[in-house]
Amino acid sequence: RINGDRLWDSLMEMAKIGPGVAGGNNRQTLTDEDAEGRTLFEKWCEEAGCTMGLDTMGNMFARREGTDPEALPVYVGSHLDTQPTGGKYDGVLGVLGGLEIVRSLNDMNIKTKHPIVVTNWTNEEGTRFAPAMLASGVFAGVHTQDWAYGREDAEGKRFGAELERIGWKGDEEVGARKMHAMFELHIEQGPILEAEGKDIGVVTHGQGLSWTQVTVTGKDSHTGSTPMPMRKNAGLGMARILELVDQIAWSHKPDAVGAAGHIDVYPNSRNVIPGKVVFTVDFRSPDLSVIEDMEKRLREGASQICADMGLDVAFEKTGGFDPVEFDKDCVAAVRNAAERLGYSHRDLISGAGHDACWINQVAPTAMVMCPCVDGLSHNEAEEISKEWATAGTDVLFHAVIETAGI
Amino acid sequence: RINGDRLWDSLMEMAKIGPGVAGGNNRQTLTDEDAEGRTLFEKWCEEAGCTMGLDTMGNMFARREGTDPEALPVYVGSHLDTQPTGGKYDGVLGVLGGLEIVRSLNDMNIKTKHPIVVTNWTNEEGTRFAPAMLASGVFAGVHTQDWAYGREDAEGKRFGAELERIGWKGDEEVGARKMHAMFELHIEQGPILEAEGKDIGVVTHGQGLSWTQVTVTGKDSHTGSTPMPMRKNAGLGMARILELVDQIAWSHKPDAVGAAGHIDVYPNSRNVIPGKVVFTVDFRSPDLSVIEDMEKRLREGASQICADMGLDVAFEKTGGFDPVEFDKDCVAAVRNAAERLGYSHRDLISGAGHDACWINQVAPTAMVMCPCVDGLSHNEAEEISKEWATAGTDVLFHAVIETAGI
Ligand SMILES: NC(=O)NCCC(=O)O
Ligand SMILES: NC(=O)NCCC(=O)O
Repeated sequence: RINGDRLWDSLMEMAKIGPGVAGGNNRQTLTDEDAEGRTLFEKWCEEAGCTMGLDTMGNMFARREGTDPEALPVYVGSHLDTQPTGGKYDGVLGVLGGLEIVRSLNDMNIKTKHPIVVTNWTNEEGTRFAPAMLASGVFAGVHTQDWAYGREDAEGKRFGAELERIGWKGDEEVGARKMHAMFELHIEQGPILEAEGKDIGVVTHGQGLSWTQVTVTGKDSHTGSTPMPMRKNAGLGMARILELVDQIAWSHKPDAVGAAGHIDVYPNSRNVIPGKVVFTVDFRSPDLSVIEDMEKRLREGASQICADMGLDVAFEKTGGFDPVEFDKDCVAAVRNAAERLGYSHRDLISGAGHDACWINQVAPTAMVMCPCVDGLSHNEAEEISKEWATAGTDVLFHAVIETAGI
Repeated sequence: RINGDRLWDSLMEMAKIGPGVAGGNNRQTLTDEDAEGRTLFEKWCEEAGCTMGLDTMGNMFARREGTDPEALPVYVGSHLDTQPTGGKYDGVLGVLGGLEIVRSLNDMNIKTKHPIVVTNWTNEEGTRFAPAMLASGVFAGVHTQDWAYGREDAEGKRFGAELERIGWKGDEEVGARKMHAMFELHIEQGPILEAEGKDIGVVTHGQGLSWTQVTVTGKDSHTGSTPMPMRKNAGLGMARILELVDQIAWSHKPDAVGAAGHIDVYPNSRNVIPGKVVFTVDFRSPDLSVIEDMEKRLREGASQICADMGLDVAFEKTGGFDPVEFDKDCVAAVRNAAERLGYSHRDLISGAGHDACWINQVAPTAMVMCPCVDGLSHNEAEEISKEWATAGTDVLFHAVIETAGI
């Protein structure tokens, strides 16, 4: 078993970097706070005897040697970046859980056949630079590195320049590493495990995602002196499209979700009818055909709404991945570990996207989940118990050891 | 007749300060650009032989002496501040039109009985600091100066501190001046004059305004892993309220307008269901009972929408004024001037709020309007012709001379 107290102390220590406004964290990717978090993680890894690798996307790889010089490493990790108003565990538990495995192996003086590499993937959250899981996506060959470097934040700063600025751009070619397997521990971010009183989620699948950035263009004009029939109110067009998004998601109940989290109104002045609204619709489902149907109905319905209102509309797909089926052997390793350790468990479909979803394309991959309070995540009030964190890391530990061999 | 070429040159010169991104202006109140515009206006006024007064709200008063030392001045002016994506004429024409009157009187060597004071009122637009017409409102005793100083912009900067920072806070007590009368020239910002081919709008009334800031609070949570039935989507609540606002305004057709120009979504991340949305509903009507009905239906309807969705909602009235009836004699002076000069004209109700609406509470006041292309304002593409500007300023000139006496 791993050392739950030590794991918890490290989680609390990391949470001091980039504190939020309500008890959580704001440690967005490629900010100074991200750099500080990376430095702390690097220090801990070196203290645990690992050597740190760093690739050209800023992905960090802390390696503990194995006994077989030929054997490919078993990877374990997640991400240290957070939402602007994020929690202390989303991503962080997976990285520091990986570190805790190494520390526990050291304590127990256990040597594994395959090396173990604890990974911090850059820009998992996708808030500052869309899409989410950007650097694991480049690693898996889904995006080119040039394209990733050109991604812009809201202020027009580019990913590549910001990675260099914070000093965490490495020399190692991204994606060159070969993996024996990869495991990711993550909080569920949904309500099922807590509601059913299960300790462990054995993640068999991940649902797919589609992000469509919608730009509605009307005409900015005076809110007081422009007669109602002459208005081209892009804000009202946006409102009608948000209602449509909700209807589309409910129509596939319970196999889909949909909402817009990002909405920018221009010029955003109290007495100017919005001339332009840019917003991002997030649709998800475990069923690819459902995602495709939702995307199609969004484009058709929003086009009709805007045509009726004399507005222009444009669509851009800014993120997306198909539903994922994780590797059967890796999933079995997770399930076996939970069984062996006596933790209650059930199979789960991940509602969120994870780096594991991309790595699954290039290596056998699976995920372990632990409950979180009220299923709440992407909120500073995100909470888990030390027991949940410990159980999840115990299962991760055993799944990794089983796969890495002793 | 005034010198239309000189007026136009000054308009174009002022428009160089705080250029926009699409041919208009971004010279928002109490910015460095506002200070630069003020300095240029002061220079022009001094060159025209005026002495500049400055009050504790930053209102500027350029005085041309009259022949009767006892006579109260006739005021003429508007505002130099603009929307973030504003036009070159909204407000500016009224200030520089006033300056052109003084320059023309100098050319013609005419002395008026009453002094003439050309005024630039601070923060008419109300974009950076709500409400609109802030400093003329303090002048008229509608708001206290302390309250005005405490108004905050989106970054939390206060009006009082920013006024001091840009160096345009004067010593003169605000509102201490007594006025014989006040005239404001402004572009119509609506489509009527152009559509009917009239040169001049004789403004008899101004419609009233109500700004309600609405805060919808839900729960920010993950867009992917939060099941649809568990969501408290403040963005969707906002969307439904925007639809309601539109319905309410149309229900009073043609005597009302309504829209929201300002919408801020929190935390505004693509994969976070909005936990909070703050937006401002702008309702207007020439009929006070209509405004009251709209406010009431907004509060009741939005409360019901939010209750049905498990959202909280709060309302704050952040701006408002009752419909205005301008002074009959001043209005007659404007109408007579248009007649005398042979300009086509019609009576108008102002759709927008103006400093004149507040000053009307403490002095006999009226307004002159000239057409603008397509009725478009609060848009960088706002446009007028030199002929329209000249006609409006000619009428202003004659109305002022008639009132100031020779
Ligand atoms: N796990 C997680 O919150 N990932 C962010 C990407 C997503 O929106 O699913
Ligand atoms: N004239 C003008 O645009 N004033 C701004 C205040 C308002 O919204 O009516």
